[in-house]
Amino acid sequence: IAKEVAKLLEMKAQLGGDEGKPKFVLKTPKGTRDYGPKQMAIRERVFSAIISCFKRHGAEVIDTPVFELKETLTGKYGEDSKLIYDLKDQGGELLSLRYDLTVPFARYLAMNKITNIKRYHIAKVYRRDNPAMTRGRYREFYQCDFDIAGQFDPMIPDAECLKIVHEILSDLQLGDFVIKVNDRRILDGMFAVCGVPDSKFRTICSSVDKLDKVPWEEVRSEMVGEKGLSPEAADRIGEYVQLHGGLDLIERLLQDAKLSQNKLAKEGLGDMKLLFEYLTLFGITGKISFDLSLARGLDYYTGVIFEAVLLQQENEHVEELVGVGSVAGGGRYDGLVGMFDPKGRKVPCVGVSIGIERIFSILEQKLEASEEKIRTTETQVLVASAQKKLLEERLKLISELWDAGIKAEMLYKKNPKLLNQLQYCEDTGIPLVAIVGEQELKDGVVKLRIVATREEVNIRRESLVEEIRTRTSQP
Amino acid sequence: IAKEVAKLLEMKAQLGGDEGKPKFVLKTPKGTRDYGPKQMAIRERVFSAIISCFKRHGAEVIDTPVFELKETLTGKYGEDSKLIYDLKDQGGELLSLRYDLTVPFARYLAMNKITNIKRYHIAKVYRRDNPAMTRGRYREFYQCDFDIAGQFDPMIPDAECLKIVHEILSDLQLGDFVIKVNDRRILDGMFAVCGVPDSKFRTICSSVDKLDKVPWEEVRSEMVGEKGLSPEAADRIGEYVQLHGGLDLIERLLQDAKLSQNKLAKEGLGDMKLLFEYLTLFGITGKISFDLSLARGLDYYTGVIFEAVLLQQENEHVEELVGVGSVAGGGRYDGLVGMFDPKGRKVPCVGVSIGIERIFSILEQKLEASEEKIRTTETQVLVASAQKKLLEERLKLISELWDAGIKAEMLYKKNPKLLNQLQYCEDTGIPLVAIVGEQELKDGVVKLRIVATREEVNIRRESLVEEIRTRTSQP
Repeated sequence: IAKEVAKLLEMKAQLGGDEGKPKFVLKTPKGTRDYGPKQMAIRERVFSAIISCFKRHGAEVIDTPVFELKETLTGKYGEDSKLIYDLKDQGGELLSLRYDLTVPFARYLAMNKITNIKRYHIAKVYRRDNPAMTRGRYREFYQCDFDIAGQFDPMIPDAECLKIVHEILSDLQLGDFVIKVNDRRILDGMFAVCGVPDSKFRTICSSVDKLDKVPWEEVRSEMVGEKGLSPEAADRIGEYVQLHGGLDLIERLLQDAKLSQNKLAKEGLGDMKLLFEYLTLFGITGKISFDLSLARGLDYYTGVIFEAVLLQQENEHVEELVGVGSVAGGGRYDGLVGMFDPKGRKVPCVGVSIGIERIFSILEQKLEASEEKIRTTETQVLVASAQKKLLEERLKLISELWDAGIKAEMLYKKNPKLLNQLQYCEDTGIPLVAIVGEQELKDGVVKLRIVATREEVNIRRESLVEEIRTRTSQP
Repeated sequence: IAKEVAKLLEMKAQLGGDEGKPKFVLKTPKGTRDYGPKQMAIRERVFSAIISCFKRHGAEVIDTPVFELKETLTGKYGEDSKLIYDLKDQGGELLSLRYDLTVPFARYLAMNKITNIKRYHIAKVYRRDNPAMTRGRYREFYQCDFDIAGQFDPMIPDAECLKIVHEILSDLQLGDFVIKVNDRRILDGMFAVCGVPDSKFRTICSSVDKLDKVPWEEVRSEMVGEKGLSPEAADRIGEYVQLHGGLDLIERLLQDAKLSQNKLAKEGLGDMKLLFEYLTLFGITGKISFDLSLARGLDYYTGVIFEAVLLQQENEHVEELVGVGSVAGGGRYDGLVGMFDPKGRKVPCVGVSIGIERIFSILEQKLEASEEKIRTTETQVLVASAQKKLLEERLKLISELWDAGIKAEMLYKKNPKLLNQLQYCEDTGIPLVAIVGEQELKDGVVKLRIVATREEVNIRRESLVEEIRTRTSQP
């Protein structure tokens, strides 16, 4: 009986509360969040830094729909395809939410027969992944992508992508970082000389990709146990993936008895050397690490791959954020556009994606710790009145100010108290108050109050716009 | 047999082309489009005009997820609910793509117990509607929403919303427009005095809403035939919905023998009068029409409603665009937040939504007709070389420029021809070329070429950044 009662109570709870009102779950979907005004202010700062960098490098901007035909995304993401959000079949085409901005970009190039473009694209992407929201891992998140498509001399666009990551991470002052670099051809060559069968390259690559999260022993047992690799091959891989360094390591591997015999590995190492030469000219090799354990999960990479990792927080109180992980990644994908072109014509591409949610999480926590006050509006002046019955005069004045391009607010009350009006300025950071009163109206002036100093000056009505502009212009 | 062959051929076509390559449909989903660099340049101009207006009025900005729990959207859109995109049930919560930004805003307010905010939100919304893309009607489209939430003195925020529509449409120079205004209370009062039963108010309101697209006769027959309204009631409605005007009409209806007896209508008309007084102070009544045929489709409106319509195109060649229809709309919805609050606490709201796709369609066609050249990048200088083997010098110079904040590009070739480099500037509108050569390197200078005039000057390397800044600064 107790069981039955419990069941009935549960059913009642599901059906609604006591007042018969349907029970609402008042939340955003799992793995998503709202951005309030304060968070948006931070987010727009980050976007602005990223966009100016992309524009500094001469990129155009494009946009694509949030969903694609399901088949457009099929077969592009390897084991991660299970994380794609599908739309319900409501008649018509089968659709999926985009998983990244790279596949839509390739579809866009093939569809419009574009063989040459440098573009950025900032938009949300969707993954049915396990969210870890305090660490900035969401199911809906922004990607900021910069890609260079076209047939060019080797490693020049690739080097620019790394320069961009370097510029953005330095600009945002997130603390120390390192950009790991590797090449899919070096990985494949390494797999070959270690004795991995061709058919297992991609799946073994996925295992290597986990090395930034789990220790080698675990990855090894996945390779041997789940994926059927011989223990000897796994151990040989284990030796290589420990290696990281700079030009010296590249030179050493170019002399490596086994690797140097493999065509793919040799090509990859040759290009890696060229890349490091260009990065030296850019003066950024100090933060670049050639790292043989870097694999990157996505199927479509064909050459250079890279990933930027924050090393530690400047703010030592936020200890759990140490090793917040990857904040940018990318690589070369020379075959993806050809998968969409009806004749298979290839357009070589290389690009970088900045993962701003993690960056944003860090900045949000920093800002909360610092107690810096962020303004969430840009209002220059509050139009106020000292006496009652001046609503009409306030409406007239604010309309004049708006029409002159001044950012102005007023309280939506017929007869607000002056104190409340001043308090509103204190709360929201509005620097000026334009006060209309009987006497001022007679004299053809407006009393302008400077909130910070409490100073008040009478300004002739026809000079008010100019006065507000002067007093609120940024140096 | 012919039938069987046809079937087999169809199957073959579905399976793939002659080369056994899977047949791809290379397109975006129905009712959606890509935005290329040129379109984005136009779109960003429009956004920038709209955002500055919203900021001028002191709005904060928020963002919400692209999907909501399905139940969040249920019961908010009346007959249009069938147009909501649902996500496939892949385990976990049932989700739908947002249909507008208003319901997510109300959910956000209730969830965060916010009773007072002025915010804007610019984002894409989704409707499984019949697309008419040349007229700017899409299944994925941007809305630019500005809303004022809070308990205030009547019609002050409402008047500001209309002022905002007026400012934006004037600013964008789309040609003449009119903003139609009505009030749900006036409509309901009118329905009551015409003899519409209470239970039919919403569905008859939906019929009235069609008057901007179909003639009265058709709407009347829907009311009488499909919705079972008496012919007499329909005819009485028919008389009212022909009326439109200004303060004079409001005064007349306040004296109307039947309407003035209805409490709701009287309230609505009283507020309408107040609204027109405020709009007179704003100096915008010239473009406002109190129009009894305006109904607006959405269920959640409770007071003032409005809709802005472009009257005709400035460009007379685009004749099919005459009456492009609504480019902005909005109204008061005082009950929506209460539907989300567990205790039903109400937060009065009024807001406006700018439909930028139609505006964008018009501007795009205008621009194509005018042959104005739009730059799609902001690059200030191309780093070029006149001789071969100067790739390293170009990389060094461009890196210096980037680090100094100069927007710079170079061709991704080891040894590009000078002519091709200059041609690239002509094509993309880059105003300056910084040319490195053997002699210039020896002399410690860079040759700066002004593309427009073909003038060339030698600039000392240490002055180059300043020189580029001066020559490309906007007045």
